[in-house]
Amino acid sequence: MHIDALQEHILQRLERDGEIPLARQIYIILSDLILSGELSAGVKLPASRSLATDCGVSRNTIMFAYEQLLAEGYVISQTGSGTFVSDTVPVADWSHEESALKEKSPMTEHQRYLSKRGSELVSSAQASAEQWQPFVSGVPDISLFPKDIWLRLLRKHWQQATPAMLSYAHGAGYLPLRQALIERLRLARSVNGTADQVLMISGLHNAISLIAQLLIDPGMTVWMENPGYWGAATVLKMAGANIVPIAIDEEGLAPTPEQIAQPPKLIFVTPSHQYPLGHVMSLARRRMLLDYANAHDAWIIEDDYDSEFRFAGLPIASLQGLDSYQKVIYLGTFSKTLFPGMRLGYMVLPENLVDYFAIGLSEKYRDGRLLEQAVLADFMVEGHYAAHVRRSRLRYAKRSVLLREAINEQLGPDWVSSNVEAGLHLVIHLPAGTDDVAIARAAKAAGIMVRPLSRYYLGEPSRAGVLLGYANVPDELIKPRFAQLARIIRSELRA
Amino acid sequence: MHIDALQEHILQRLERDGEIPLARQIYIILSDLILSGELSAGVKLPASRSLATDCGVSRNTIMFAYEQLLAEGYVISQTGSGTFVSDTVPVADWSHEESALKEKSPMTEHQRYLSKRGSELVSSAQASAEQWQPFVSGVPDISLFPKDIWLRLLRKHWQQATPAMLSYAHGAGYLPLRQALIERLRLARSVNGTADQVLMISGLHNAISLIAQLLIDPGMTVWMENPGYWGAATVLKMAGANIVPIAIDEEGLAPTPEQIAQPPKLIFVTPSHQYPLGHVMSLARRRMLLDYANAHDAWIIEDDYDSEFRFAGLPIASLQGLDSYQKVIYLGTFSKTLFPGMRLGYMVLPENLVDYFAIGLSEKYRDGRLLEQAVLADFMVEGHYAAHVRRSRLRYAKRSVLLREAINEQLGPDWVSSNVEAGLHLVIHLPAGTDDVAIARAAKAAGIMVRPLSRYYLGEPSRAGVLLGYANVPDELIKPRFAQLARIIRSELRA
Repeated sequence: MHIDALQEHILQRLERDGEIPLARQIYIILSDLILSGELSAGVKLPASRSLATDCGVSRNTIMFAYEQLLAEGYVISQTGSGTFVSDTVPVADWSHEESALKEKSPMTEHQRYLSKRGSELVSSAQASAEQWQPFVSGVPDISLFPKDIWLRLLRKHWQQATPAMLSYAHGAGYLPLRQALIERLRLARSVNGTADQVLMISGLHNAISLIAQLLIDPGMTVWMENPGYWGAATVLKMAGANIVPIAIDEEGLAPTPEQIAQPPKLIFVTPSHQYPLGHVMSLARRRMLLDYANAHDAWIIEDDYDSEFRFAGLPIASLQGLDSYQKVIYLGTFSKTLFPGMRLGYMVLPENLVDYFAIGLSEKYRDGRLLEQAVLADFMVEGHYAAHVRRSRLRYAKRSVLLREAINEQLGPDWVSSNVEAGLHLVIHLPAGTDDVAIARAAKAAGIMVRPLSRYYLGEPSRAGVLLGYANVPDELIKPRFAQLARIIRSELRA
Repeated sequence: MHIDALQEHILQRLERDGEIPLARQIYIILSDLILSGELSAGVKLPASRSLATDCGVSRNTIMFAYEQLLAEGYVISQTGSGTFVSDTVPVADWSHEESALKEKSPMTEHQRYLSKRGSELVSSAQASAEQWQPFVSGVPDISLFPKDIWLRLLRKHWQQATPAMLSYAHGAGYLPLRQALIERLRLARSVNGTADQVLMISGLHNAISLIAQLLIDPGMTVWMENPGYWGAATVLKMAGANIVPIAIDEEGLAPTPEQIAQPPKLIFVTPSHQYPLGHVMSLARRRMLLDYANAHDAWIIEDDYDSEFRFAGLPIASLQGLDSYQKVIYLGTFSKTLFPGMRLGYMVLPENLVDYFAIGLSEKYRDGRLLEQAVLADFMVEGHYAAHVRRSRLRYAKRSVLLREAINEQLGPDWVSSNVEAGLHLVIHLPAGTDDVAIARAAKAAGIMVRPLSRYYLGEPSRAGVLLGYANVPDELIKPRFAQLARIIRSELRA
């Protein structure tokens, strides 16, 4: 393609009212052209300002796309002379390439402005902009939420709101909510403890950040499940943790002997429903983990993000309930049981940490929102919470079955990763070497949000696959939308 | 005092239904006895378990008080043999004391559990547990808030809530709110920019934490006003910043030539109403600051926390409005104009940082609460915000006058620090050497919350004084409550 045709090509493909941000669209268009060879190595891209004018978008949009291309190695930037398509055919002579790179010393835009850790955060960003499309994972069916009941309780609490309920919170949050919550956790999750050990916090990320700052110093080692939740890894890295990825097998966390010989200070696990693979940690492995943490004075974070949703088999108790050493910090969230926008989560802490965490919470976040916590306390005490979870569980169980049927019909048996029927998502494993990122990208263009499994791995090697959330897809859409996705998968498998 | 009399003394002084947490009360009682010599050096304190039983409180309560005493050097702990009152009379022979200390190697409870930075956070904690008593600073008069209007808007938005409004937010927050906000900031604060540059964030602490992680790496230097807002310093320290305290003079930030020679990466200022002293940064100083930041590639955080409340004189424009270099990050909050428990603040960013901060926000916090943002957008667009601020301003102006009159009547003229009539608090300066912490403690026991000025200083030397918030004290209580406080101040000055 001659560079003059570029503008026209972009204008043709750009969807101005589409779901995908313009910068991302331009990045996709350009990377497609480079990978296909239509824009060949050495071609100079138009200056961001002029391309922006030609395409009728802001200069920031173009710059953002260029930076992404630069960060991923599609283009190189030479100060003063412009941006050029890279030679993406691998070269044998590494030393030559290295010296060439040094000579050019490309500096991406974000490296210019941001700190090292900031650059790393931005270039490894994973959160989806869109949160409400078929197969988006980790989002419940918000349309089930009993808005009328919530609104009635909101009205009640606003009408009787004292200034203290609208001011800053003192430490651990609204006591009646913490009481209702520990009752529920005792019953549903076999969690041990009292309301004093419960801290309300605005979301899992803030909880992990507080734990990291109070319990570890920069450079200390944290074990993360691999694959695992990238958001937790991001927050821990930002707090200076040295992340060591630990493999997952059928029984759960499976460190190597070398890893075992170097105990970490903190261990992050999802024992009841491994995220994203769905395994349940075996009892033997749980006890080994607790003994190990106790022997080496390590803390364990148990992220029990979606365990209220188990459709078959025996309920699986929390790891915290087994812990006689006071080493487990139990984390939960209302994002999966109620709605994510609420931004309210909770921690159940070992007794000897409670007071420190209450202080740390006040100092680090100066939390508030007591009125909403009072609304939620009523919602739980009046039984609406349990009823809503029960209703949601039935709905999700049905959708899980529908999706499994669709997978069988479209792709045949033996594709789903986990035989544990629980949670809000499942994983389809794909043959080694499948480009799951390309599948996710093609699906996104078709209005389907799946996440590539490879992106959940910290470093190599990774398995290919896609995560599918079924909780928020209307029953009648599951099969047709999956059929669409299956076409994309089959076409990628043939490629 | 014989140790057997301790239980009785504690039971006599303990207020079980009081405002002060029990652990804190016990800490105060014991430290008083040690300082007064009634518990003399070498006396062994009862075991925490038995004292807890005797006093009818939990063991945690006693342990917390003991740890605080240990951290502050009132007692020493010898493993296996117990907790002993320290010799608090200074010793001349330092080397002797040092070796004695080493021998004992006292380790406070929190050092046992927490990281270094966690221990530091907990032992320097400053947030007040009580937020709704006369003269608490930084809290507006929440009783003025038009709850009915808010509730009406809440009902409207809940009734029409789509799932997307209840899911995670995408990056920067709800656009109509950001539009309403930038209009207001342009008008009221001379802030430059567009809605694209506005990011909604759940409070100032989270904003500072995000800035620190995106723009500085551990060990980099940050200038903080001295005295200044301890909460900002805490968050920056937790993010690994090397805090350099910069003195404040009548014109604002006043670095020494040595400090100027070592440019920081980030500068935190409150130019419109220095916190806590109340000075306004002069125009000359503002321009110097902007030129300096630009020349040395430093970022400036402008914390414009309460500038909507100015009762006299010309309005003072934001520093951001003067910045032609795109170096200023402007921060504001609804905590002072609406109510603190809302937990909603905002940043106005330089254009070249906007996209990165939107990504960083999603990755680090996964924000939500779009429905509340929509309510607030309506509240602003319908004019309720401006009306509420205007009404609050008149009320606070009156209370500021009443408090100044009370100070004049009780203590005479020339005590108030700042002649700028603005904000939610003022400072009374006290003669050098006055123990303002003791005043604050005595006031607290009488149900009056004042903050000691010395606590706002990072390192020595500090000035003595007390901060008085007047915004949330009913008109008719200002004079009687201040008379009470004046008695405490006078008695401390005589001591």
